[in-house]
Amino acid sequence: MIIDLISDTVTKPTEGMLESMMQAKVGDDVFNADPTVNALQEKMAKLFGMEAALFFPSGTMANQAAINIHTRPGDKLFCDKYAHVYNYEGGGAAFNSGVTCKLIDGKRGMFTADQLEYSVAGRSDIHVPNASLVCIENTTNKGGGACWQFSELEKIQKVATSNNLAFHLDGARLFNALVAKNENPVQYGKLFDTISICLSKGLGAPIGSVLLGSKEHISKALRVRKLFGGAMRQVGFLAAAGIYALDYHVDRLAEDHKKAKEIAAVLSAVSYVTKVAPVETNIVIFYVDSNIGDTNFILKMREKNILLTPMGEGRIRIVTHLNYTEQMHQKLLETLKNF
Amino acid sequence: MIIDLISDTVTKPTEGMLESMMQAKVGDDVFNADPTVNALQEKMAKLFGMEAALFFPSGTMANQAAINIHTRPGDKLFCDKYAHVYNYEGGGAAFNSGVTCKLIDGKRGMFTADQLEYSVAGRSDIHVPNASLVCIENTTNKGGGACWQFSELEKIQKVATSNNLAFHLDGARLFNALVAKNENPVQYGKLFDTISICLSKGLGAPIGSVLLGSKEHISKALRVRKLFGGAMRQVGFLAAAGIYALDYHVDRLAEDHKKAKEIAAVLSAVSYVTKVAPVETNIVIFYVDSNIGDTNFILKMREKNILLTPMGEGRIRIVTHLNYTEQMHQKLLETLKNF
Amino acid sequence: MIIDLISDTVTKPTEGMLESMMQAKVGDDVFNADPTVNALQEKMAKLFGMEAALFFPSGTMANQAAINIHTRPGDKLFCDKYAHVYNYEGGGAAFNSGVTCKLIDGKRGMFTADQLEYSVAGRSDIHVPNASLVCIENTTNKGGGACWQFSELEKIQKVATSNNLAFHLDGARLFNALVAKNENPVQYGKLFDTISICLSKGLGAPIGSVLLGSKEHISKALRVRKLFGGAMRQVGFLAAAGIYALDYHVDRLAEDHKKAKEIAAVLSAVSYVTKVAPVETNIVIFYVDSNIGDTNFILKMREKNILLTPMGEGRIRIVTHLNYTEQMHQKLLETLKNF
Amino acid sequence: MIIDLISDTVTKPTEGMLESMMQAKVGDDVFNADPTVNALQEKMAKLFGMEAALFFPSGTMANQAAINIHTRPGDKLFCDKYAHVYNYEGGGAAFNSGVTCKLIDGKRGMFTADQLEYSVAGRSDIHVPNASLVCIENTTNKGGGACWQFSELEKIQKVATSNNLAFHLDGARLFNALVAKNENPVQYGKLFDTISICLSKGLGAPIGSVLLGSKEHISKALRVRKLFGGAMRQVGFLAAAGIYALDYHVDRLAEDHKKAKEIAAVLSAVSYVTKVAPVETNIVIFYVDSNIGDTNFILKMREKNILLTPMGEGRIRIVTHLNYTEQMHQKLLETLKNF
Repeated sequence: MIIDLISDTVTKPTEGMLESMMQAKVGDDVFNADPTVNALQEKMAKLFGMEAALFFPSGTMANQAAINIHTRPGDKLFCDKYAHVYNYEGGGAAFNSGVTCKLIDGKRGMFTADQLEYSVAGRSDIHVPNASLVCIENTTNKGGGACWQFSELEKIQKVATSNNLAFHLDGARLFNALVAKNENPVQYGKLFDTISICLSKGLGAPIGSVLLGSKEHISKALRVRKLFGGAMRQVGFLAAAGIYALDYHVDRLAEDHKKAKEIAAVLSAVSYVTKVAPVETNIVIFYVDSNIGDTNFILKMREKNILLTPMGEGRIRIVTHLNYTEQMHQKLLETLKNF
Repeated sequence: MIIDLISDTVTKPTEGMLESMMQAKVGDDVFNADPTVNALQEKMAKLFGMEAALFFPSGTMANQAAINIHTRPGDKLFCDKYAHVYNYEGGGAAFNSGVTCKLIDGKRGMFTADQLEYSVAGRSDIHVPNASLVCIENTTNKGGGACWQFSELEKIQKVATSNNLAFHLDGARLFNALVAKNENPVQYGKLFDTISICLSKGLGAPIGSVLLGSKEHISKALRVRKLFGGAMRQVGFLAAAGIYALDYHVDRLAEDHKKAKEIAAVLSAVSYVTKVAPVETNIVIFYVDSNIGDTNFILKMREKNILLTPMGEGRIRIVTHLNYTEQMHQKLLETLKNF
Repeated sequence: MIIDLISDTVTKPTEGMLESMMQAKVGDDVFNADPTVNALQEKMAKLFGMEAALFFPSGTMANQAAINIHTRPGDKLFCDKYAHVYNYEGGGAAFNSGVTCKLIDGKRGMFTADQLEYSVAGRSDIHVPNASLVCIENTTNKGGGACWQFSELEKIQKVATSNNLAFHLDGARLFNALVAKNENPVQYGKLFDTISICLSKGLGAPIGSVLLGSKEHISKALRVRKLFGGAMRQVGFLAAAGIYALDYHVDRLAEDHKKAKEIAAVLSAVSYVTKVAPVETNIVIFYVDSNIGDTNFILKMREKNILLTPMGEGRIRIVTHLNYTEQMHQKLLETLKNF
Repeated sequence: MIIDLISDTVTKPTEGMLESMMQAKVGDDVFNADPTVNALQEKMAKLFGMEAALFFPSGTMANQAAINIHTRPGDKLFCDKYAHVYNYEGGGAAFNSGVTCKLIDGKRGMFTADQLEYSVAGRSDIHVPNASLVCIENTTNKGGGACWQFSELEKIQKVATSNNLAFHLDGARLFNALVAKNENPVQYGKLFDTISICLSKGLGAPIGSVLLGSKEHISKALRVRKLFGGAMRQVGFLAAAGIYALDYHVDRLAEDHKKAKEIAAVLSAVSYVTKVAPVETNIVIFYVDSNIGDTNFILKMREKNILLTPMGEGRIRIVTHLNYTEQMHQKLLETLKNF
């Protein structure tokens, strides 16, 4: 038994999801003729109270398309120094859109409206990139699954609006935040110009993300998706998994959160762990004693068939998910206690 | 019964293919951990005698990645004026890679080594883009499914090599050429630096293309695919369809070709058709009398549940494929005769 | 005595111009504090009846900035197959702006409104680049100094407007057209969204071009100029030359035209010349007998200290200009007659 | 009398420089035919012991060209968080080259070899941009004219080399460092792959920068300069000023440094100044009491015809230069004392 805690992206479809995929009605989505994709897009748009939605092969492409439609080359976007769009999309903002990331020094991947205001207020002449976009990530990946205060997001949105900045949410794990904080998708749909949602993380679908926005934004995103090479054919097989995930895998995220907190509790109690970051959702970030070392610890755990991720600067990451069973959970807790 | 002849991209998986998809072993391909994707990539590389292969969500992305790795922004590539990379990829060469297309005025999408030599021989100072790539499309889409003479490709390769130009094959429908001309994939693997092959056209898989090349090229393409947002998770479901297609759907392309020729024969015989382009594979291009008009003809056929594509300048396109049954074929031939 | 007919860019300032340069009041133009640059920009804007103007280090940069502000990456512009923006700016449209050039097959660098309409009317879905700009070059360089019919430009402008396309004039040699056809700058200012004018060709200034447009367009161009690295410091020295050129070197372009026509007359009469293109301004394009060959002819002339330019496909170009004196002219005519 | 201390870019040519410009022999530099440009380029290359040099219309373009030739789109460069290439070139690294800036948190614009090593050692898979370049700025502009320890630069070069990173020096004010630290240009020529030098700052020329490097690098930069639109015609007028500056304006930089230190001494003594950064060359950065406020202080000084620059976060900048006379100096010192 391999206990893969590397990411919630490693999940494989459940039987129900697989059956749903195989019964999907499909068509050529390049010609807008796949009924299941269309159904998923409509379902998502309705859920968030937004006008339109578009399926993407990855969350990276959904974010990159959003960045592209909200900016011109030479512009800058504001994001936290931990943001996925800056750290883990290969330099895509510069590559795909000629855009510079202006980093804000937040906490656990989250900054304040005041920090944004201060950053926006700097020099704005031709020597510096034109400001056009604010990107939020909720929950924060590198920040350890932290959830933004919705009231702070509302303040940030005001700063964005009053400075003519578009407002994009990288909601790769937004459903984790919605469940953890008992929030409503429509709240987010009202606040943001565009939202990307990942179906292949906690929700457990094999492939795909959805970008939400106004009809105008999604129409532009459709063109950009084609340019990136993200227009696919019989996508309904993947969309069906997404629909199934929305129907059956949202509420159960609470289980992942519960397990993550239990793992954190054990880690906090053992002597070789020096620090455990606060756990709000399905991500646990912790540090081990320098006598052990993060690389060595990860290696030792790998020998026990437990897979963890190094996150740089001594941080180790655990992500709980759909395929992380109760049996695995008990095994992990024991192993951590006895290490 | 709708007879959809718009493209061979509209095909839906057969039962066997669907079963094969359902039983696929999958993993997270972003971490190179999907065994079925790896199996497909190895199978394709071996088939063409090339070092490595990489799965892409679309043929457009496979071509765009190839263009990117063979060039620098400011360079130019040579292609036929009918080439898919110039005409139907949304301006991607300029958008993704800052590359200018230098068009060659070929016949049915195919140019000669002499034409390339002449085009290469022009001015080469800083006023003109640096030349770095030659792109071939086989079979030609806009050229009506025409197949290149392999001996001409060999001559073109020599011109490319002696001018330090990389050589890429857009093989979206290469298997149609291989079957029609009884050629061997390895011949092509030896001639080209990179080859893109589409699994979702004549081969009948729902999604995906594969790029073939040296290990170094494919390693670069891996990075570019991530930048485009084309790195996906449990891709094995799609790769399984590709493997099935290679095993069961290659030889049967001859049926599509036979039907296309029969359609062309009927079109050549009816009075309202003014010209039928030569048919070598699964694409028929023809012109109707100006009294009828191409738009009107397509509309009339649509009323009879027969779907065709306008290709500009009066051309009408028919594409035969896996889902175009014998029954549909007889119905179409009759309809065309009695129009 | 070297008779340099390679281009009208080779001219050196006259004594008067040099004196004017050295007496220029200058300031730091990056801070908009150079009075002479401001004076030149106002003078040009007023002359063409346009709102604003901006100095550039080259015509290439002025054109590239115009392309950038009128488009988004992934768009296409329409231009003649001979256009400078496509042929001689190093692939800049793709490099700087991610823009594809859609070539129109005109005559001597000039197309008709009908040709544009036909080209615009093609496919417009996500497979093809979004259309956003029409570029005209007047006079045409590769077209042999030909001047557009103003009435045709008016028709083209209507096609552009009704298709939401911006309209840019590469007026590198526009003053040659104005003088040759006795036209008024204001006519052009009314017709185009932006116009680039070169000061360092027929006008005889050492460096610089000016872009004209609305305040909004020029404000955007200011930012793009900075991004290209075209914002310079004490530019007044160069601007003073431009002001002098506008005051003293416009009317005398007629002399260049007269000499060009006299050269053409001699070339038409000698037996070794097979064809001379019509001459309207200061450019003569001709072909020599294949027994001699263009490369060889240019070489032979170089031995006689007469410098000509090969323009590809057997064409040879002569450009008359400010530094081409009457004495040189007589020497050239004689040499051509006795060759 | 206006005392303009905004930047050393505001200087106007001296009489000697102007005379030298006026007598320059010029030619069309696009055809490599301007003898004075060639002389300047050779002089600079020789001075730094490098193979080749190229004139640019601005330091921004010289830096942007260097970034372009050392990288591919999607790459990242390492620089200090204060670096000019990140802060004041309009977002050009992303716009022109698709490159992401990875910021290092140095002191006064200078980081250590250890800091670079740590930054390089992070994740290097496809999720993060490929590392290809290290950029140094000496002296540092935003860092207050600070000079790097040459021994630290040598260590940094070793880290760069062992990680296959190119090494570029933004030497906009390198001559200030050379004079202040009594260093030799050849030391720098040996250490860096490319160096940009500004002629229009402390050296007092009106326009221009020079990029130094190997023949291969400069040959690539020539092409990029054309693409940016930076190829100009009779550039000799500007190059002559550069040659004059190298001959007559280098040693005198010591005077600017002396005056800057005297200003700093006065500022350190007055009660309304809360902090003065260390002064090594011709830049003074200081903070005023929050009761006064930087914006207000700059305004008050402007009323006295003394022009200063706000540098963000309360910092005020003074830059001494060629046109800042002894008389102005005494006036300034008195005004500061009596404020």
